[in-house]
Amino acid sequence: MTHFADRLLQACESKGAPVCVGIDPVLEKLPAPLRVPGADVHQAADAIRQFVEGVIDAVADLVPCVKFQSACFERYLWPGVEVYHRMIELARQRGLVVIGDAKRGDIGISAEHYAAGNLGDHVLPGSGLGPDALTLNSYLGGDSVQPFIDLSVKQGKGLFALVRTSNPGGDAIQGLALRDGGTVADAVAKLVAQWGDASVGGSGYSLLGAVVGATKPQDALRLRKLMPRQIFLVPGFGAQGGTADDVRACFNPDKRGAIITASRSVLFAFDKKPGDWKRAIADAAVDLKQQVRAILA
Amino acid sequence: MTHFADRLLQACESKGAPVCVGIDPVLEKLPAPLRVPGADVHQAADAIRQFVEGVIDAVADLVPCVKFQSACFERYLWPGVEVYHRMIELARQRGLVVIGDAKRGDIGISAEHYAAGNLGDHVLPGSGLGPDALTLNSYLGGDSVQPFIDLSVKQGKGLFALVRTSNPGGDAIQGLALRDGGTVADAVAKLVAQWGDASVGGSGYSLLGAVVGATKPQDALRLRKLMPRQIFLVPGFGAQGGTADDVRACFNPDKRGAIITASRSVLFAFDKKPGDWKRAIADAAVDLKQQVRAILA
Repeated sequence: MTHFADRLLQACESKGAPVCVGIDPVLEKLPAPLRVPGADVHQAADAIRQFVEGVIDAVADLVPCVKFQSACFERYLWPGVEVYHRMIELARQRGLVVIGDAKRGDIGISAEHYAAGNLGDHVLPGSGLGPDALTLNSYLGGDSVQPFIDLSVKQGKGLFALVRTSNPGGDAIQGLALRDGGTVADAVAKLVAQWGDASVGGSGYSLLGAVVGATKPQDALRLRKLMPRQIFLVPGFGAQGGTADDVRACFNPDKRGAIITASRSVLFAFDKKPGDWKRAIADAAVDLKQQVRAILA
Repeated sequence: MTHFADRLLQACESKGAPVCVGIDPVLEKLPAPLRVPGADVHQAADAIRQFVEGVIDAVADLVPCVKFQSACFERYLWPGVEVYHRMIELARQRGLVVIGDAKRGDIGISAEHYAAGNLGDHVLPGSGLGPDALTLNSYLGGDSVQPFIDLSVKQGKGLFALVRTSNPGGDAIQGLALRDGGTVADAVAKLVAQWGDASVGGSGYSLLGAVVGATKPQDALRLRKLMPRQIFLVPGFGAQGGTADDVRACFNPDKRGAIITASRSVLFAFDKKPGDWKRAIADAAVDLKQQVRAILA
């Protein structure tokens, strides 16, 4: 069983760029042939399944990693959740490293249940294998994160804890100044580094990574120092406004340690490019790789 | 359409105590007749459905409110999620105010999707009605909370944002001291008060409440002042070690403004009381009411 961080970094190397395509399907934005106006939850979930199958097919040979936005599937209740799990399985079969972006967080036995339900449960028949990694919200503290770490160690999985987000309101809590110096996000970063320290792979990176938004290069540089052994999952490139400097700041000097995610700019690339929608998505994935390679060159 | 806070407080009054039974079913702890060793996800979800039906039947006429722990259902993938939604519907039909304890939080369109999927979507055929209220994790800031507020206003629903939790690790982030005074939890409390201010009902309480753990009376007193218009959802009574003083501190001087939740001590009451498991649960719910009434007397 290969350590998650080693597996992710190796996939980035073999596919030629540390990028991730975010799969955040939105019913109203599907390619015209897949649209189903007035759909009920079952029809909606099925249309999304067809779209995601196409997306996986378009990008599987091009990128190392995809990230599934749980909210976009949960919206369609249990039919949507079934599509979420089945498409994660398909993506893994196609050789992609798969991140479940569910931002879960709870305490005690609830945290154990979230871990088992979202990262696969090796003791429960028929429970599926789940994504390779999961995003977490660690506001509840270390005992809310530990059950996820324990299961990840056991199953070769990974985690990304929310540290710094790129949305306009992200500062309200994450940016608060602490009495002992630094911000709340800095303190969370130190905790994440500490929680992940016992689970470092051969690559030198922990199975516990961090979500660090790509819109503030000063932040990213500081967080990079506070979390040398965390792989940064960096959303906000492209549609959300992250720049080349923002992205560069997320990597270690050896140009490893981060994975750059783009969602809308790849997923809905067909909006700006008439013709075959799968081709437009594949082209956008290649563009993303080239942009990130250029930034790191 | 009655405002959520008004509806919840009225239910507490008519049922005689501001209490909530937490529905956190655990397969291995079900009553003996419902146990299914070696179950797959479908059998597990079905056993949990039978148990939760019994729990709802046992407590519906006794307590104002139940809280469903999403993690315990998500563990069994989409069959579990179907049981979650169907049992929430059943509980609402039985006249209970229902809280979905899912601790969701994300930004932009993902927050909108979580809101629609977890609080009901009035435009999507077959999407169900969802629980009356949902718990949130607001670490991502105000723009992560606003889509939930907007949908709640539209649909007469409510929210409870995590402010202070009672778990051993809760202090690590929530307890950090800020440069400008107070703790991170205090700052979150002020933000929650501010975010909820535009959505206050006739009762004087906002549709945006707060989760405040019941283990630190000093904390609760301070948070009560910072959030005068928030209904506190107070877990940690009973099994998690909250005391009478802790509970009292969560209420306003008029003895309103909080709802006390007990999960394991009610749900698994049959462990300590042989015979009819539904009867044991009903008796424990009555005990919970009497304890809280005595504290408030």
